[in-house]
Amino acid sequence: MEIKIKTPLPHGGRLVDRVVRNPELGKKMARGCPAYDIKPNLYNGMPVRNVYREIMSICYGFFSPVEGSMTQAEVERVLKERRLLSNWIFPYPLVFDISEEDYKKLGVSVGDRLLLRLKGQPFAVLDIEEIYEIDPQEIATRTFGTPENNPEVVRRAFDTKHPGYVIYLSLNRIVLAGKYTIINEPRLRPPFDRFWYPPAKSREEFKRRGWTTVINHQTRNVPHVGHEALLRNAAFTGDTKPCDGILVNCIVGAKRLGDYPDEAIVEAHEMVNLAGYVKPQRHMVTMLLWDMRYGNPLESLLHGIVRQNMGCTHHMFGRDHAAVGDYYDSYATQILWEKGIPSFGFPAPPNAVEYGLLIRPQNMAEFWYCPHCQEVTYSENCNHLDEIQRFSGSFIRSLLSEGLFPPPVIMRPEVYKVVVKWWKQFGYPFNNKKYLTEREKELEVDLAPMDI
Amino acid sequence: MEIKIKTPLPHGGRLVDRVVRNPELGKKMARGCPAYDIKPNLYNGMPVRNVYREIMSICYGFFSPVEGSMTQAEVERVLKERRLLSNWIFPYPLVFDISEEDYKKLGVSVGDRLLLRLKGQPFAVLDIEEIYEIDPQEIATRTFGTPENNPEVVRRAFDTKHPGYVIYLSLNRIVLAGKYTIINEPRLRPPFDRFWYPPAKSREEFKRRGWTTVINHQTRNVPHVGHEALLRNAAFTGDTKPCDGILVNCIVGAKRLGDYPDEAIVEAHEMVNLAGYVKPQRHMVTMLLWDMRYGNPLESLLHGIVRQNMGCTHHMFGRDHAAVGDYYDSYATQILWEKGIPSFGFPAPPNAVEYGLLIRPQNMAEFWYCPHCQEVTYSENCNHLDEIQRFSGSFIRSLLSEGLFPPPVIMRPEVYKVVVKWWKQFGYPFNNKKYLTEREKELEVDLAPMDI
Repeated sequence: MEIKIKTPLPHGGRLVDRVVRNPELGKKMARGCPAYDIKPNLYNGMPVRNVYREIMSICYGFFSPVEGSMTQAEVERVLKERRLLSNWIFPYPLVFDISEEDYKKLGVSVGDRLLLRLKGQPFAVLDIEEIYEIDPQEIATRTFGTPENNPEVVRRAFDTKHPGYVIYLSLNRIVLAGKYTIINEPRLRPPFDRFWYPPAKSREEFKRRGWTTVINHQTRNVPHVGHEALLRNAAFTGDTKPCDGILVNCIVGAKRLGDYPDEAIVEAHEMVNLAGYVKPQRHMVTMLLWDMRYGNPLESLLHGIVRQNMGCTHHMFGRDHAAVGDYYDSYATQILWEKGIPSFGFPAPPNAVEYGLLIRPQNMAEFWYCPHCQEVTYSENCNHLDEIQRFSGSFIRSLLSEGLFPPPVIMRPEVYKVVVKWWKQFGYPFNNKKYLTEREKELEVDLAPMDI
Repeated sequence: MEIKIKTPLPHGGRLVDRVVRNPELGKKMARGCPAYDIKPNLYNGMPVRNVYREIMSICYGFFSPVEGSMTQAEVERVLKERRLLSNWIFPYPLVFDISEEDYKKLGVSVGDRLLLRLKGQPFAVLDIEEIYEIDPQEIATRTFGTPENNPEVVRRAFDTKHPGYVIYLSLNRIVLAGKYTIINEPRLRPPFDRFWYPPAKSREEFKRRGWTTVINHQTRNVPHVGHEALLRNAAFTGDTKPCDGILVNCIVGAKRLGDYPDEAIVEAHEMVNLAGYVKPQRHMVTMLLWDMRYGNPLESLLHGIVRQNMGCTHHMFGRDHAAVGDYYDSYATQILWEKGIPSFGFPAPPNAVEYGLLIRPQNMAEFWYCPHCQEVTYSENCNHLDEIQRFSGSFIRSLLSEGLFPPPVIMRPEVYKVVVKWWKQFGYPFNNKKYLTEREKELEVDLAPMDI
């Protein structure tokens, strides 16, 4: 029998590292190139995506083996089979899109190098391999699937109420395909700086901590007690003993109105260990720059890739993983990881196909509070179905917006204080229009001035 | 990578079944044989072992591939390498011992068949392959190990305060080696009858319930909330999701003064599911007839064998597994299953050696109650080390013997009521001399009259 689980190789065999750390080399690479200022994609006037986050996640290796904006053939293969041209599985098209107007202004063609500026400073270059046109509506629909084409898990047609769908709808029609290289390394701004662990660094940190088995907890939320129960209990899987470490990887990027601000999310998760609910030695909070697509099973693939690249051996998946609304089956992600979804190109689970993943799923049912058990308990255990109380994120948010202190059985008091801290900062506990618009100017990074 | 854990084969490849279910055949097999009445081994006047339990566990396949009382060469190999002559690992010498006086009276020799009577009725036959003499003191010492010979895990010399050691000390000097066959199938008496799941039957029951991944919980105790936490949380290991089922396998047999009576133990565990703390669909209480040896890592091997034979894929091991006192390192069992104990014949874990086990360990640390977390929590998570309250079996027993209702944070009220039920029956909540002596007459079984 198989003995001792090991840290998995990165997806595709090696970590992508497309960051030039020598500023002189960076300058030289960009000299004489036409320049373009990165701007967020808008939908209905609201920012929904900023390609800078994809460039960061690609160049720092989170999305290994992806190295840049995909060619037309690669987008086609991803949409058909969820595989890159190199055969490695990948769920989403990732492209560098610009408007026809900008394209004409730039006057670039295949073989050119384009300098990308962020916050007015040189940031990265894109070596153009191909230029082609897309139909955003078609890409949006094919990215997420349809009830007709993906009857195993898609329950209804995607529409503009879905925040991932509108990201693809918001794309400009011209795509410049090619590899990115960061030439002016951005500095993460507080509080994000201390949560920034690109895969090479997180793998190093795991080694330093003596972690082999590490389970990832995906989050885009301030943790309530139910989230914490999921996180702690899922970690009882492992090898010959429970997982050595729990990696919390927070999605930081464009969010929806009414979500918690990302600053509160990362610090609230950190508070779980600072306040001793999971020992800091066993718990590590990190982040991923990503404008979430909410693609449930497809998003879980991206999560598997990112966290395998970070060095995790396991990934927990709950009900409605990375989902919004009822477009997908509530258990679509677990179906993918239990038996596969043939219509999405997976006749078997993503870690049982060639060029697939090496990370292991921990598919979890629900946690609820049971007054009879007098504790948070697991739906496969507790049989007091007349008495149970389900956790409700919207209930907690309604308590908060009324200014009520949530009971400790719902939210840890220390975690609540983190929410209040950022509430005071932003004037409202949840993302409003002002926050979402401002953050696309501020972003999560600062760039040192670089004269080319 | 390995995908999907399956129900393991029995230890040794097939389940032993040495039970004759046709009474006519049984009678015929025993006709004309000399007869011997099974009696308990005594130490200091107290019963400490009854070989009938070993005969049951062997013939019904719990101890597969063991088929009878071991030959001298097999005992020697077990003591040296913890392996049977067939190479399969096994921790303990198991022999049919009789006094010199009885031996002379019987006048049997190699090749003879001996009829074994229980409660005055024909029960089993022993086909004598070898007759030899043992030194109980030597067997006792070699069985458990010494600090000199087993420095990895034995902390001090065994003595007569150890209840397993005195079992071997109590052996008679003559051993009749050979295979057992039950010829008159005993009927388990209530309440034990509904917990009697020999391996063939438990495997069938797992299939009926749709369980593949099943984790075993070893017990010789009425469950307090800490035991229940271990049981429920260890079961979050599994394959792609937590274990389908939790098998509780209670050790039923000779016990110590002050232990809970076995009747209370099996029913108290059953109450955990009847009262809804773990759904009955996910939880199954069974028993093993065995006079426990308390051999910590060695006992864990027997537990692995028995539960693999019953069809379990996983076995949870806590601190001080099957231990009494501080003869062994508190984590001796986990050391065995993490890396092996070379001096006991295991340069690698028992499921990583040839002719070894297929069951997987889940090595768990501690659970305690934390008033800050406001719940039972895991020692690798909770960092409120100044506030925690450890579970103490002796504290709970002292509450009970004072007639105090233990608080629900320590023992579930429904479980406590089971203790009280048997307390009323036996006049005392714990085993006293009368209970221990009476039970070796009553035993856990009745035998139908059989005229031979």
